[in-house]
Amino acid sequence: MNAERIEAALRAAVARVSAPPCPPGLRAALRAAVLPGGGRLRPHLTLAVAAACGDDAPALADAAAAAIELLHCASLVHDDLPCFDDAAVRRGRPTVHVAFGAPRAVLAGDALIVEAFRTVALATGPADRKVQLTAALAEGAGAPFGIAAGQAWEEESSVDVDAYHRAKTAALFVAAARMGALAAGGEAEAWAAVGEPLGQAYQVADDLADQLSAAADLGKPVGQDAAHDRPNLARRLGVDGALMRLESLAADARAAVPDVPRRHLVTGLIDAAVARLLPAALAEPLPRAAVG
Amino acid sequence: MNAERIEAALRAAVARVSAPPCPPGLRAALRAAVLPGGGRLRPHLTLAVAAACGDDAPALADAAAAAIELLHCASLVHDDLPCFDDAAVRRGRPTVHVAFGAPRAVLAGDALIVEAFRTVALATGPADRKVQLTAALAEGAGAPFGIAAGQAWEEESSVDVDAYHRAKTAALFVAAARMGALAAGGEAEAWAAVGEPLGQAYQVADDLADQLSAAADLGKPVGQDAAHDRPNLARRLGVDGALMRLESLAADARAAVPDVPRRHLVTGLIDAAVARLLPAALAEPLPRAAVG
Repeated sequence: MNAERIEAALRAAVARVSAPPCPPGLRAALRAAVLPGGGRLRPHLTLAVAAACGDDAPALADAAAAAIELLHCASLVHDDLPCFDDAAVRRGRPTVHVAFGAPRAVLAGDALIVEAFRTVALATGPADRKVQLTAALAEGAGAPFGIAAGQAWEEESSVDVDAYHRAKTAALFVAAARMGALAAGGEAEAWAAVGEPLGQAYQVADDLADQLSAAADLGKPVGQDAAHDRPNLARRLGVDGALMRLESLAADARAAVPDVPRRHLVTGLIDAAVARLLPAALAEPLPRAAVG
Repeated sequence: MNAERIEAALRAAVARVSAPPCPPGLRAALRAAVLPGGGRLRPHLTLAVAAACGDDAPALADAAAAAIELLHCASLVHDDLPCFDDAAVRRGRPTVHVAFGAPRAVLAGDALIVEAFRTVALATGPADRKVQLTAALAEGAGAPFGIAAGQAWEEESSVDVDAYHRAKTAALFVAAARMGALAAGGEAEAWAAVGEPLGQAYQVADDLADQLSAAADLGKPVGQDAAHDRPNLARRLGVDGALMRLESLAADARAAVPDVPRRHLVTGLIDAAVARLLPAALAEPLPRAAVG
């Protein structure tokens, strides 16, 4: 049901940003960047937190979820560009720049960033919440704390690894959790504390996947971190160490969930997300003692 | 005085987006993209319209002006990339991608787009106006009507020239005028009718400059339109025809200024802007009969 809300909100946003008189090539690039998508993990987090907070403005929660995912899609399109990862495949299909050219990939990313903010502005809901959502989305997406800054760390010869990981991955999870709370009038900072370890767990899982999985399983090339000499926790800690770290972060995320009646909506999502995050090759359960 | 307000608001935004822990290379790219700037024509329009509307929330007008200029700067950084104009020089200095690399240029543009929206969200002012400002900015910046769509028309083999010119240049002038009105609680659509012909006039001036001026005068390479086979009004109408069109559009912009007590603040800006828009080589005044 949340999946349907997310896809409906994303389809509406894509329809709006690519409506006539959108140039046809940009329209195709915009659609390919967003539809069909990946796990939609961030917008699911937004909606789960909104539900736990009462979801009293569901149209605004839907808009917040879509905005987070539009920003995520934009960052993927830009990350795949030849001047970054130069990735040819994403989610098993040609990347946007391969299919439609680098200019349209740059512009599709730009337009999706803009559309994320417009989606919040146009939603039905209280104006003060929309302003808070806009600020939270901007903090997670831009600089100095958001994904643009995170990606830019990869261009530095000397990397602040903590700032890099927080910005590159955790920031958008923090924004996703915050925005779920803000959309429903909840306590944003309490829920940010759930997004932070979950985002870090996602980064560990991504590092593991990059290090280990077969390209066919992920639908994208792997070993990018080694190829680009980027920090990778699975290289540093080893596979077992990284798996234990992932489980420990997931436990931190569970523990951070505020004690509200519907908290199970979020803990359940965390469990499901962690199960999905583990690369297929590593999906055997850890001994529960290791989870704490 | 408006120039000081604009620069102060831009400096504050740049300081915020490039504050620690921003990666140093991204910080340098962000600063270079915004400071020092060009004519700041769009934010001047925003502040002039806000003043004509009473400027009852000056911090919000400043934020709106800065947001418009941040978006404009972002679009220049992306337009200069190797996959678009591949420009080496802008405002007499190396372009951002030449000075800091294409990855940082992509990310600086992304971060500036995001910061534009954050600047509005964080300003002091009524929440409902901020939401309206966000929507107006998004319409001018993204797709299908904004500058991302405008730039994307240049990738099409068959171009809708009217949609192309409206989106590539006029859209951000419309947003600038609208946002000045919205920040001050004025009538956005009445002022949009001022931004539209002024933006079209700017496009004609840009076409003239591209066609005719020496590189030294503009601080950027010229003849890009011919090199990229893009529609150019000065090529189509000739120099005299394009000049008459520019003056006619400026007259349209003047005539559209609503009949408010401080309308001279905007008509004066239009006159000054048109004088600046004319390439130095063409700065002799036209016969007044041609102006109407």
